[in-house]
Amino acid sequence: MTVTLFAPLDMHLHLREGAMLRLVAPFSAAQFAGAVIMPNLVPPVDNADRLARYHEEIRAAVDPYPFLPLMTLFFRPYDAQTLQALREHIFAIKLYPEGVTTNSAGGVSDLTAIEPTLAMMEELGIPLLVHGESHGFVLDREAEFLPVYERWARTFPRLRIVMEHITTAAALDLLDRYPNLFATVTLHHLLITLDDVAGGLLQPHLFCKPIAKRPTDRDALLAAALAGHPKLMFGSDSAPHPIDRKEAAFCAAGVFSAPVLLPMLVELFERHNALDRLPDFVSGNARRIHGLNPPPRTVRLVEDPWQVPMRYGDVVPFAAGQTLRWQVVAE
Amino acid sequence: MTVTLFAPLDMHLHLREGAMLRLVAPFSAAQFAGAVIMPNLVPPVDNADRLARYHEEIRAAVDPYPFLPLMTLFFRPYDAQTLQALREHIFAIKLYPEGVTTNSAGGVSDLTAIEPTLAMMEELGIPLLVHGESHGFVLDREAEFLPVYERWARTFPRLRIVMEHITTAAALDLLDRYPNLFATVTLHHLLITLDDVAGGLLQPHLFCKPIAKRPTDRDALLAAALAGHPKLMFGSDSAPHPIDRKEAAFCAAGVFSAPVLLPMLVELFERHNALDRLPDFVSGNARRIHGLNPPPRTVRLVEDPWQVPMRYGDVVPFAAGQTLRWQVVAE
Repeated sequence: MTVTLFAPLDMHLHLREGAMLRLVAPFSAAQFAGAVIMPNLVPPVDNADRLARYHEEIRAAVDPYPFLPLMTLFFRPYDAQTLQALREHIFAIKLYPEGVTTNSAGGVSDLTAIEPTLAMMEELGIPLLVHGESHGFVLDREAEFLPVYERWARTFPRLRIVMEHITTAAALDLLDRYPNLFATVTLHHLLITLDDVAGGLLQPHLFCKPIAKRPTDRDALLAAALAGHPKLMFGSDSAPHPIDRKEAAFCAAGVFSAPVLLPMLVELFERHNALDRLPDFVSGNARRIHGLNPPPRTVRLVEDPWQVPMRYGDVVPFAAGQTLRWQVVAE
Repeated sequence: MTVTLFAPLDMHLHLREGAMLRLVAPFSAAQFAGAVIMPNLVPPVDNADRLARYHEEIRAAVDPYPFLPLMTLFFRPYDAQTLQALREHIFAIKLYPEGVTTNSAGGVSDLTAIEPTLAMMEELGIPLLVHGESHGFVLDREAEFLPVYERWARTFPRLRIVMEHITTAAALDLLDRYPNLFATVTLHHLLITLDDVAGGLLQPHLFCKPIAKRPTDRDALLAAALAGHPKLMFGSDSAPHPIDRKEAAFCAAGVFSAPVLLPMLVELFERHNALDRLPDFVSGNARRIHGLNPPPRTVRLVEDPWQVPMRYGDVVPFAAGQTLRWQVVAE
């Protein structure tokens, strides 16, 4: 049996830089026609030069795959001139509240002071991607941020707002209430809960931000993905860290899922008899919502069990050591 | 300034065996007149021979301190004859639901089938110490177990039942409702929440079972301890693991707090102007509740700042690297 996917897109991806980028980018380029590239490097991608250099570095790392890096800028209170000049080089702008996740120092600390920039983004048609977490108790952070989404959705009705990597049923509920609100969800948040992270032995390789939540949340997200919810897009949030930053006294947040994404998505959707919804989830919704035209690649998976390596270089992947049934066939 | 404590007791302590026991036991013996020793070794302490040998091993490791190891048995459905023979050698019996924590395989899987043994313990005056967690969602486990405590407290009104290492305000509430229910609480659950474990970088050395909960829970536990709640006893649950079992892909549960217990308790109670309640919390309550007569030692602490080492042998202690104001003076 074969599964064929047209132009799959990963709408939330961390590629890092340098040697790590060269290690991890080919996994994404082999499976996806394009991906939204997160800008939270050190220093962040927040100007034209940095953007052009990072884009070039990615292009070199994914060669020869026909792969479209959808570049993003790290949110700053940019002025109109800057935004106009950058507009054609970016897909969107990513907003991080200060300090909420990996490399988010320098993020936004006053969420109301930035509204002039949001108004300009609305005018220019630049989507706003948001890591929507408060600074509250770890399990409440996403829920506590929802009123901010609501305010922005009402204040800027033509601004396309994407709630990134949602983890709760409450965030999902919001999608139906505002036409300009959209969301991405990761593979791992369709599969795991806090019980997997910290309910048995503690598993640092499953630790990410936002942290995995309750079974009821996971079940709601999975049901929406399997139903092909038209405002929910796949975004892996694959975020590699070297093993010595994961298996450590202070473990960095991030799940490196890039190598296993399409094989595990096909297995998951097949198990739930929802393979017919997978094309919308991994491509159709994103293309329609954002009007994207990625390279017209067709990615094919066949049933051919393989064991996920325990490491790729010095990075431990999601599902390390597990046997997966499907694999992507080289084009 | 000096703080003097009469016969401090650690009512919940993991000493392990062999080299680890010899490494960690002196920290407890230097600070406490006695401790309740947990029986979840591999294999567990569940017979007279194992009990005698373990007791002897502990005695040798704490020499020359006058330190009373209050031995416990791993709960089995013991018959009357066995219980009678073991009675004089033990302080209590510790019950683990199967699989809920470190080395709890072989614990109790059917909580109703064991009631005949509980009835015999009630007759013989043997306290029941319980790791009270269900197999549900990690943050709900303690709350879900509370009805079991209630059933036992009602069914066996003369059985002294100790809810070990409580972590929630809900468990605390139960103390006031049943005269035969008591509780221990750890130092770390008076200080940390899930935010410390997993809200910033993930901290495996703060990972324990039951996992730390919400700020409201921590605040309720702390308030009760500072108020000298008469049914709440200090029990550290200090549980050492070698560093390669903590900073690992699968991290074992347990916080090694033994070296810092009294210094941090004094600092905590002093900060809240509650030093006058500390003697009850670390000794008086336990002596009264259980009728204990530990060695009549007086432990003295003086203000003399010291930095907690990053490791003791291959074990990372709680508060590693922090400067503490108080230290125990050698007798």
